[in-house]
Amino acid sequence: MSEFVKLRVLPYNKEIVVEKNKNLLQTLISSGINIYASCGGRGTCGKCKIKILEGKYTTESSQFISEEEKRQGIVLACKTLPVSDIIVELLSQLNFIEEIQQHSFLHKEFWQKDLKEYIIKNFDFSPLVKLLHLNLPKPSIDDHVADVDRMINYISQKEKINVVFDNIELITSLPELLRKNNWVVDTVLNEEFCVNEETSVYKINCISKVEKLYAIAVDIGTTTVVVALVDVLNSEVLGVYSAINQQIVYGSDVITRIIHSEQENGLKELNQKVVYTINELINLAIKNANIQQKDIYAATVSGNTTMIHLFLNLPAKYIRREPYIPVVNRVPPIEAYKTGLMINPLGKIYCLPLVASYIGGDIVGGVVACGIDESQELCVLLDLGTNGEMVVGNKDFLVSAACSCGPAFEGVGIKSGMVATVGAIEDIEIRDEEVLYKVIGDTKPVGICGSGLIDIPAVLYKAGVIDRSGKFIVDNKKFKNRIRENADGEYEFVVVEKEFTLNKQDIVITESDIENILRSKGAIFHGLHTLIKYLNLYLEDIKKIYISGGFGSFIDIKKAQLLGLFPDIEQEKFVVSGNTSLLSAILFLLSSYARKRIYKVQQKMTYIDLSSLPMYMNEYTSALFIPHTDLSLFPNIAKELRR
Amino acid sequence: MSEFVKLRVLPYNKEIVVEKNKNLLQTLISSGINIYASCGGRGTCGKCKIKILEGKYTTESSQFISEEEKRQGIVLACKTLPVSDIIVELLSQLNFIEEIQQHSFLHKEFWQKDLKEYIIKNFDFSPLVKLLHLNLPKPSIDDHVADVDRMINYISQKEKINVVFDNIELITSLPELLRKNNWVVDTVLNEEFCVNEETSVYKINCISKVEKLYAIAVDIGTTTVVVALVDVLNSEVLGVYSAINQQIVYGSDVITRIIHSEQENGLKELNQKVVYTINELINLAIKNANIQQKDIYAATVSGNTTMIHLFLNLPAKYIRREPYIPVVNRVPPIEAYKTGLMINPLGKIYCLPLVASYIGGDIVGGVVACGIDESQELCVLLDLGTNGEMVVGNKDFLVSAACSCGPAFEGVGIKSGMVATVGAIEDIEIRDEEVLYKVIGDTKPVGICGSGLIDIPAVLYKAGVIDRSGKFIVDNKKFKNRIRENADGEYEFVVVEKEFTLNKQDIVITESDIENILRSKGAIFHGLHTLIKYLNLYLEDIKKIYISGGFGSFIDIKKAQLLGLFPDIEQEKFVVSGNTSLLSAILFLLSSYARKRIYKVQQKMTYIDLSSLPMYMNEYTSALFIPHTDLSLFPNIAKELRR
Repeated sequence: MSEFVKLRVLPYNKEIVVEKNKNLLQTLISSGINIYASCGGRGTCGKCKIKILEGKYTTESSQFISEEEKRQGIVLACKTLPVSDIIVELLSQLNFIEEIQQHSFLHKEFWQKDLKEYIIKNFDFSPLVKLLHLNLPKPSIDDHVADVDRMINYISQKEKINVVFDNIELITSLPELLRKNNWVVDTVLNEEFCVNEETSVYKINCISKVEKLYAIAVDIGTTTVVVALVDVLNSEVLGVYSAINQQIVYGSDVITRIIHSEQENGLKELNQKVVYTINELINLAIKNANIQQKDIYAATVSGNTTMIHLFLNLPAKYIRREPYIPVVNRVPPIEAYKTGLMINPLGKIYCLPLVASYIGGDIVGGVVACGIDESQELCVLLDLGTNGEMVVGNKDFLVSAACSCGPAFEGVGIKSGMVATVGAIEDIEIRDEEVLYKVIGDTKPVGICGSGLIDIPAVLYKAGVIDRSGKFIVDNKKFKNRIRENADGEYEFVVVEKEFTLNKQDIVITESDIENILRSKGAIFHGLHTLIKYLNLYLEDIKKIYISGGFGSFIDIKKAQLLGLFPDIEQEKFVVSGNTSLLSAILFLLSSYARKRIYKVQQKMTYIDLSSLPMYMNEYTSALFIPHTDLSLFPNIAKELRR
Repeated sequence: MSEFVKLRVLPYNKEIVVEKNKNLLQTLISSGINIYASCGGRGTCGKCKIKILEGKYTTESSQFISEEEKRQGIVLACKTLPVSDIIVELLSQLNFIEEIQQHSFLHKEFWQKDLKEYIIKNFDFSPLVKLLHLNLPKPSIDDHVADVDRMINYISQKEKINVVFDNIELITSLPELLRKNNWVVDTVLNEEFCVNEETSVYKINCISKVEKLYAIAVDIGTTTVVVALVDVLNSEVLGVYSAINQQIVYGSDVITRIIHSEQENGLKELNQKVVYTINELINLAIKNANIQQKDIYAATVSGNTTMIHLFLNLPAKYIRREPYIPVVNRVPPIEAYKTGLMINPLGKIYCLPLVASYIGGDIVGGVVACGIDESQELCVLLDLGTNGEMVVGNKDFLVSAACSCGPAFEGVGIKSGMVATVGAIEDIEIRDEEVLYKVIGDTKPVGICGSGLIDIPAVLYKAGVIDRSGKFIVDNKKFKNRIRENADGEYEFVVVEKEFTLNKQDIVITESDIENILRSKGAIFHGLHTLIKYLNLYLEDIKKIYISGGFGSFIDIKKAQLLGLFPDIEQEKFVVSGNTSLLSAILFLLSSYARKRIYKVQQKMTYIDLSSLPMYMNEYTSALFIPHTDLSLFPNIAKELRR
């Protein structure tokens, strides 16, 4: 039997009742407090440090906790069990989901202003959830058509769509409803499925007085979940909200998650975490928009194959086993109540279709959002999330591949890393001895997000702090105040000293952070290079390269080339596209032309398993240098890097 | 709080625990014992007599119970409450549903032998539930299509049908299932709906080892429910079972039922009764065929509009209120578990489409079963059930009308009436002073069924027992031993004396029975005559007249003409078609060509409200004579009737 104690969490003064035998990381995460723990709570990443202010507890010593920290009562939450009532202090200021609302994520301007124009220019408006105002002809002796048939006939004739009405509970209440409202009613219809390219079928899902119609578009990332609340009638995004995918407590990458899903209750736990994360964001969104849960009649969901499987509670085990087969690619619409999503229970959940175990609907949608499927020119889509996915093609062919680059570009697994939100350093330079940086929002810095992390290796290399393999040059004189050996016996570079940070902690980059970043960039560049070679093409053949992912509003192409992440081609060819996964979920919701293109891309796109190509495995390590061991691949960059 | 006593029912020696405050009619019916009570248990029909052999009870005196009966302990079950444990004897031998199994209903030969040939000749075989054996290509690195998509692609390509797979529970279990069975599995698909004339959509409803595929076809009559168990793979009817629709305890005609449905819990009670009746028949059918409930994947249901509404638990109140609007005509397929029908819970229930409040799917189906919708000639369908429905038309037009004729032709509301089953007199003649009769099955008679009742008035008129208005000629010398005044002070004619009957009770016809029959036949003939006149046609224009309904295997056209039920036209024009409602439910199940025709007829057929035509109301009473007051309508019959 469980025993319970009280846990008070500072600085929020939130009180939680917790089980004694549950570690504090699990407890905090299940209370909605986001703590990064990229190792899944196994004590191997050292990210979940908290400070115990009062109370008894048991903990394990760890290489990540210095003697000084130990004295202060700092512990790894994942290794600590409460014995008595306890008071803890969180060491990061940005843990609560409520805080994340402040930040309107990436491209606020775009979501709130330019989206409509973008859709009009490139797509059409025909949402997969419709609100119709019906003024039905009244029945008479000469017009004795039944109630249900009367509605269906009226809608089919007026809207020229195929209508199905098979909700028996709704049918049961229809006669009174129609008569009470004198045959003037509103109805919400959800697109059920496409029989073929031309024929969609819509289902009647609600009949009553309906004035507003909302939907949500969801991007489930391995690390970050983003929800956009959409006013369907006005094709407007009312708000964009993001949070850490709470599954992170079970591991930071898809493979770790799948492994957890195979344990007893593991799938259920992962499913509950992501549903909880989305529901928290929905709650926030509807609170801010002052609407009700029941007014949301649809959700479109974009994400990688593993995320979609876990969201739908589908077994994910065969995704990571040869020959890597998902349960489903073309996911059918599913009733909301079956997924646990807190929208109108009769609303429908639509997932963007998947291509393969490592190419999800986010990539299919991204291709359409960027218009690659209609392009005459050779294009590349490079999606930099916890997984790196890439597509090469144009209107005639589309080839995709994936590599596991880890969540470094989402700020996870990096000592001072964080997602691209308020307080994140998104741009770093070193001039002389000074470190210059740019912070998202009008605030002191808290950590470094993806675009900042991309800058760092080349900046440090140029400053002579590290060599081309990412190792610290410890006899560097210029920065001797900033280079130090930390408690773990590792070299690190102090980017911002604690007196200048919001959370009063140094913002640093360690040697293993650099290694992490180089592994990530190496996986991506080498993946792209391998794919291009496999297709008998050259990097120079690329005419447009779309960069998507959850960066800050700023990603410096030149710095990404200096790092060796992006190929050394003309900067004009790069288009930073932001969160194309979320964008495509919105397109899928609002445009039937987009839906048709997305399904077409899904059927057309082929997938190459890079790891099955010998050159990929053999040459990978060459890509772990700044920018590469083979400098002929980076002729312009090589010149710039000379110092 | 309820108190309970034990009730033993003879001759079956069945023991039931019953509530003290529940009358014995309710108790017996809810235990599956069918007692006719056409008044709905209000004590006004006198049909539910039982004999109390032991125990204490309270009862009310009734005009239907004679002094002699009272002495014997005979009571009306609906007016009797048990006080102590009690033993009762049923006065009819045919009350248990288990008995009704013995009788293979109408046209056994047809259902078991000729049906297949009839379908081949007139329709096609393409059932709305399919069993497919799949031998899926195994996935590989080069063929990494997801499990669900693999199945859908395989089926669409092989079967050339549109497939939907949206059962998330089934999808969840799919990966293990496919791998465990080495990619060889069976699947059951249900037709979901027709998008248009050409495009049907099938839904995957089951995946496992399936070897047999069954379905049931149901005819829900106001008085009688019939279930056919169909082996779908072999297009064979394995058995036909019928029982009294247990709703009869709440009244014998649709109007009484609708009125009851408007009372508190009334709809629910009626719904439960009919579902219970069907489930009892399903149980019997699967027991006899030695199959399991889960092997039944579909049910097609034919019935009048009220019966279908009550079966689906849909409010029926607007059916009987001007302008007489049903809730739904084109009923969507419904999951079995939502209807309470005891077949595979994922199976689908398909109702034949309805036309109007008083023209149901049984009539639409009947038109197709008889081929009227493809006929060049003017045809009539006359359906004689508790309602009388008629259709006039051919391939170019179809007009329908209905009249309430009461359940007389189903043997209900007639003192010695019974359904057409073993022990029923189905043919009566009088030669000299002798009454000759023919009984269904090799047994002594128990009562008279529809076809026998049709004979009686003309036979008695010709024998001088009654006059043309149905009144007894009491000074009749020849039959003075058979004519008597009964306990209710009413004249009756003894058809069979009790020493020759199975249940040791006289089989009689009372003056009010005759009146009942004349009212029924008058309503039907006058309805048809009115409709024909309304269409500016003459009775002589009819080229074929199809007679459907739950009669015995024998209906004498000439005698029906003598009665004035059928028009006085050439006998060759009459086709006795049996239970076309059940037949069309089977066609709907087995043939897509039939389904298309049925939907076409449903859309094409118009409905005339006879009661809104002045001539109908004004001239009705003329039809209450034998055969009619206007003998010019029956020129040949008039000659024959002369005695």
